[in-house]
Amino acid sequence: MEIVDLINKKKYGGVLTNEEINFVIENYTNGNIPDYQMSAFLMAVYFQGMNSDESTALALAMRDSGEVVDLHDIHGVKVDKHSTGGVGDKVTLVLAPLVAYLGAKLAKMSGRGLGHTGGTIDKLESIPGFNVVLPLDQFKQQVNEIGCAVVGQSGDIAPADKKIYALRDVTATVDSIPLIASSIMSKKLASGADAIVLDVKVGSGAFMKTKEEAIELSRLMVQIGQKANKKVTAILTSMDEPLGHKIGNSLEVYEAIETLEGNGPEDLTEVVSVITGHLLAHAGVSKTSEEGYLLAKDTLKKGKALPNFYQLVEAQGGDVDFVKDKNNLLGHTKQFVITAEKDGYLETVDALNFGIAAMKLGAGRMKKDDKLDLYVGLDLHKKIGDEVKKGDAIVTLYHNEKGLKDAIKLISESYVIGNTKRTLKLIEETITEWEL
Amino acid sequence: MEIVDLINKKKYGGVLTNEEINFVIENYTNGNIPDYQMSAFLMAVYFQGMNSDESTALALAMRDSGEVVDLHDIHGVKVDKHSTGGVGDKVTLVLAPLVAYLGAKLAKMSGRGLGHTGGTIDKLESIPGFNVVLPLDQFKQQVNEIGCAVVGQSGDIAPADKKIYALRDVTATVDSIPLIASSIMSKKLASGADAIVLDVKVGSGAFMKTKEEAIELSRLMVQIGQKANKKVTAILTSMDEPLGHKIGNSLEVYEAIETLEGNGPEDLTEVVSVITGHLLAHAGVSKTSEEGYLLAKDTLKKGKALPNFYQLVEAQGGDVDFVKDKNNLLGHTKQFVITAEKDGYLETVDALNFGIAAMKLGAGRMKKDDKLDLYVGLDLHKKIGDEVKKGDAIVTLYHNEKGLKDAIKLISESYVIGNTKRTLKLIEETITEWEL
Repeated sequence: MEIVDLINKKKYGGVLTNEEINFVIENYTNGNIPDYQMSAFLMAVYFQGMNSDESTALALAMRDSGEVVDLHDIHGVKVDKHSTGGVGDKVTLVLAPLVAYLGAKLAKMSGRGLGHTGGTIDKLESIPGFNVVLPLDQFKQQVNEIGCAVVGQSGDIAPADKKIYALRDVTATVDSIPLIASSIMSKKLASGADAIVLDVKVGSGAFMKTKEEAIELSRLMVQIGQKANKKVTAILTSMDEPLGHKIGNSLEVYEAIETLEGNGPEDLTEVVSVITGHLLAHAGVSKTSEEGYLLAKDTLKKGKALPNFYQLVEAQGGDVDFVKDKNNLLGHTKQFVITAEKDGYLETVDALNFGIAAMKLGAGRMKKDDKLDLYVGLDLHKKIGDEVKKGDAIVTLYHNEKGLKDAIKLISESYVIGNTKRTLKLIEETITEWEL
Repeated sequence: MEIVDLINKKKYGGVLTNEEINFVIENYTNGNIPDYQMSAFLMAVYFQGMNSDESTALALAMRDSGEVVDLHDIHGVKVDKHSTGGVGDKVTLVLAPLVAYLGAKLAKMSGRGLGHTGGTIDKLESIPGFNVVLPLDQFKQQVNEIGCAVVGQSGDIAPADKKIYALRDVTATVDSIPLIASSIMSKKLASGADAIVLDVKVGSGAFMKTKEEAIELSRLMVQIGQKANKKVTAILTSMDEPLGHKIGNSLEVYEAIETLEGNGPEDLTEVVSVITGHLLAHAGVSKTSEEGYLLAKDTLKKGKALPNFYQLVEAQGGDVDFVKDKNNLLGHTKQFVITAEKDGYLETVDALNFGIAAMKLGAGRMKKDDKLDLYVGLDLHKKIGDEVKKGDAIVTLYHNEKGLKDAIKLISESYVIGNTKRTLKLIEETITEWEL
């Protein structure tokens, strides 16, 4: 088998066999196929696509390039969730203790933030002492004991995906749906859960800008999961405005705690409850996802899962007293308030630009090795559809001077106050394996 | 400017500016852009194409990456021709002395053969002593004195093209019309001639398999030439059977001499005369290409340019006595004759497979560094449309054992004797700058 023949086959629109895809991944990972052939191959895939069999083979080959975590000694059904990345997305911080409270097992490996999207691991590190690196045994023991654990992704999970993603990043081959789907699924399948809910963000602040491509991605990921014998549901959630109010690492932990107390923003509470509903149904804790959803919503409303959050913090070495007075998470940064220049309704918010503004303040990374300021960020006081009076606070910037001017300018240009009271649809679509 | 943005621009179907194309070529040639980004760029070009402005900018940028030969101190109009590569194509061997006899100046840089197509330089080296490497001064002096010279392409002509071609070869990005057109034209424009005739081969034995793609390539090359202020004509000639009868290095020199004596195969004589006609018109030697054509045909018929061939051989150090007894060129190889298994007409000949069979005998290179056997090859005794009687010799293989079995098998499967007397159209189309 020669890689140049396989590039040609894909270039002419051919369907690659499992053997051919395994050949590409094995030989790229071990260095037999050089980067320049792989990048041509990836660009051919960008243009010609891959069907669900090819995408599955690709996901499985990348999964098998490294460690596949064995979670079988955790009792019960292991569930996992993944978000394709949005602005203000602190779902995992609420979901982990909630799922633990309700009796399923969440053994979660999370990433760090890059670009305009944050990472759960960075957020948790704003809690003093919180340890995101656990040996596998300890990780599993914790899930057995308290129902959840959240750690950084092990370096040995899907190394082929890591190598390919780095190449895609510099060769303009990131935005290919089969490549995105198999990249995500290779890691999820390597992480060992039995059931997975995928939160596919769609809108200005997401990687998927249109509903059509978000649906295509969702379907493909669900198909891959199904072919790999996992229970998978994808939900499409709107990223036309940030999720919740707060953007920034410690600020998002603050908002997660508010939500666990029963006082969270409506949209965040809703997304967490919908995802939890599907996970509970997959885990057999509830009969249906609707029943699971109601259970989740009620639990949040009554603040019942808050102790599970403290338990999680404690188990991973975090300072529980620090988070118990959640104002500590607001830090000692300076504040700058942007106020409304006129009366009306908040009509649009450019979530992408809000993410970028937070990054400029130091909450996110432009490049992989950038150091974060864990206490800076944004608090968006209004949501789309909210009434606004001239002089009302629209956004508070929590800052340490760095990037302030740029962030103020960007934010000021990134929302519109008008005469129309819009309503956003938060959950755009639900795609489950049973429908396929 | 960032290469990843330019890959994206092309990927999304954008039109690159001259500055952007210059940036890519300059930075790839000097090593700032790595192979893996260039191959992704080339694959994006494969799918999205390039218009004639982009292709021209690419050709000029590659031309300017190395030496641009200055031929202005050669008196008169300097003409050049290029063939896209066929089987049995010995046109240059006849055309160089013919053009010289008729008073134009042919300063020709030629290539070596690769794959199923031969190279003029290899063919000339079958003449003992023939030197294909001349210093530029001597090259130009010879053209001034005897009207023609044929040398290998200087290593410093269009080095960007050389580097890009090597990458295309291993990344399945060879068969892109704008990339082919700009590659050919970068070298032709660097070679310094005022007028160029491009012989675009079309058919089973050519790189362009269909007339449509051959026309597209021709038009694009003529446009590039025109935008670079050169007189350019492209002709499409059939490669549905080998040109002439003989395939193989010394064997093709033999047939070129026959043609210069006035006894050449009809198709070869015709193609040489048509190309010469256009060159003479461009050079102002004849008023029209038709007049030039008749002049060429008459000159060949009367054997008038044969002394110019001897002059060329002598000027470049070749053994004139050796070629004067042209049977020397048949060498001391063994011969194997394939005969007709039935009566009929020769209906089809797979020129590609004939080229591959000759390569297997040692006449051509599978890989760049393969050593040639300059005296082996094929003599195809019949042309398409010829009547054949059972037992007639169809092909004689001139061989030294190597590859004989494979070649016999391949040839036996690569022609058809049937009941239909077909006529091939040799010159399929003529595309000149004035039509554009």
